[in-house]
Amino acid sequence: MKPDNNRPLILVTNDDGVNAPGLKTLIEMAVKIGDVIAIAPDEGRSGMSHAITIKYPLRIKKIKEDEGLELWSCSGTPADCVKLAVNQLLDRKPALLLSGINHGSNSSISVVYSGTMAAAIEGGLHGIPSIGLSVTDFSSKPDFSSCVLYGEKIIKKTLTDGLPPGICLNVNFPSVPAGNIGGIRICRQARGLWIEEFDQRTDPHRRDYYWLTGYFENYEPDAEDTDEWALRNNFVSVVPVRTDYSDREAMAKLTTAYAEAGP
Amino acid sequence: MKPDNNRPLILVTNDDGVNAPGLKTLIEMAVKIGDVIAIAPDEGRSGMSHAITIKYPLRIKKIKEDEGLELWSCSGTPADCVKLAVNQLLDRKPALLLSGINHGSNSSISVVYSGTMAAAIEGGLHGIPSIGLSVTDFSSKPDFSSCVLYGEKIIKKTLTDGLPPGICLNVNFPSVPAGNIGGIRICRQARGLWIEEFDQRTDPHRRDYYWLTGYFENYEPDAEDTDEWALRNNFVSVVPVRTDYSDREAMAKLTTAYAEAGP
Repeated sequence: MKPDNNRPLILVTNDDGVNAPGLKTLIEMAVKIGDVIAIAPDEGRSGMSHAITIKYPLRIKKIKEDEGLELWSCSGTPADCVKLAVNQLLDRKPALLLSGINHGSNSSISVVYSGTMAAAIEGGLHGIPSIGLSVTDFSSKPDFSSCVLYGEKIIKKTLTDGLPPGICLNVNFPSVPAGNIGGIRICRQARGLWIEEFDQRTDPHRRDYYWLTGYFENYEPDAEDTDEWALRNNFVSVVPVRTDYSDREAMAKLTTAYAEAGP
Repeated sequence: MKPDNNRPLILVTNDDGVNAPGLKTLIEMAVKIGDVIAIAPDEGRSGMSHAITIKYPLRIKKIKEDEGLELWSCSGTPADCVKLAVNQLLDRKPALLLSGINHGSNSSISVVYSGTMAAAIEGGLHGIPSIGLSVTDFSSKPDFSSCVLYGEKIIKKTLTDGLPPGICLNVNFPSVPAGNIGGIRICRQARGLWIEEFDQRTDPHRRDYYWLTGYFENYEPDAEDTDEWALRNNFVSVVPVRTDYSDREAMAKLTTAYAEAGP
């Protein structure tokens, strides 16, 4: 790809894999704005969180090269994709990293399991303004039209304004027509939990095995400043996510408690 | 295992696998205090972060049953281990979750890649006071004596005091004799990054592949309130880690910025 230095360089990735319609949509959005290098897992890697591949070698393969677009597939995780791109594919620091559009929401506590958001966090660690985008529709063919409309607003604003240091964005779109969307809301992650319900089965060799399944429980359904509330009320939710997980308030409490306990 | 309701129930896990000496040490520490159910990956799963197994079935196997101790192996990730334990193995909520002792530190930004810490975060999400413990020695046979001495202090204090809601602990031990340790310091995660250096090779079939490698760069080596500083100065570092990744300060900034931009 011949670099055009007048256009911003945008790194695109996802966790649903290189063939996911959500990636195709995000690439189409990105090429309107800048030169795009996209690298995505060779198959779906949902629920991989921030896993990195240490025990096995990684392979990458160029799938497509057009003017202003390179598309690569990678045998690793979403975090591997970002690391390989930064180290091997990019000739300069990108102006933006976009991850998604994920088929299925990554609101509330799903942020900790999400490969989509891990890629955005990894981008943030590398100092790249980074956005994870997801739609609350797990199907293979969601309607992305309202994601495109509102996603472009958020992307352009992030390109212009940048993001505070150590922050990336977790953007979730409700799966409703654009006309029904109330706007963009800056939110915090709702307190909630995936309640596991392992499905226990017996294989043909009479050995037990389990399938992980479950349902999401929102611990604060009435909290209007949360992403879950925003999505349920047809707003686009934008959660600023930290790459520093330390809690200052707890630090102060524990410092006092340990000082009182003596050495 | 016959439950003894006078003793606290302790859930133990790790990411180095069921045969790791660090797990053995942690189980030995835990059985002195309470009844123990331990479940760990059947082989090492470092760098798995908070990955969960969705595409494949999970299997568990009882390895050992003594008075006050059950040890299980699991085909999944550290987060899977915690979910399976909570859902299938525990008859009541444990008083404590201990994850480790990891062979190698999980200070600074390693918290995002660490399976050890993901297990602790998962425990925290389930409302269990949870501690990840790691020693700054990547070898297969670290000297755990100072981890035991200081680890027991932290474990007992956590059992007595509990932890603030939504907080788990990231404890790292310097790999030095107990006599050289200056004490326990409550810290924040140092700002830093693993700088990737992919090792590019060619396989016997002339296809390129990459091994992920790299080195850690501390962006603030002089910051005395960080875990990296504590460890380098022979303190045990204790970082309170949030299960809520939202940033309130960035929320306020972005709310203003988006309000000014209009709908």
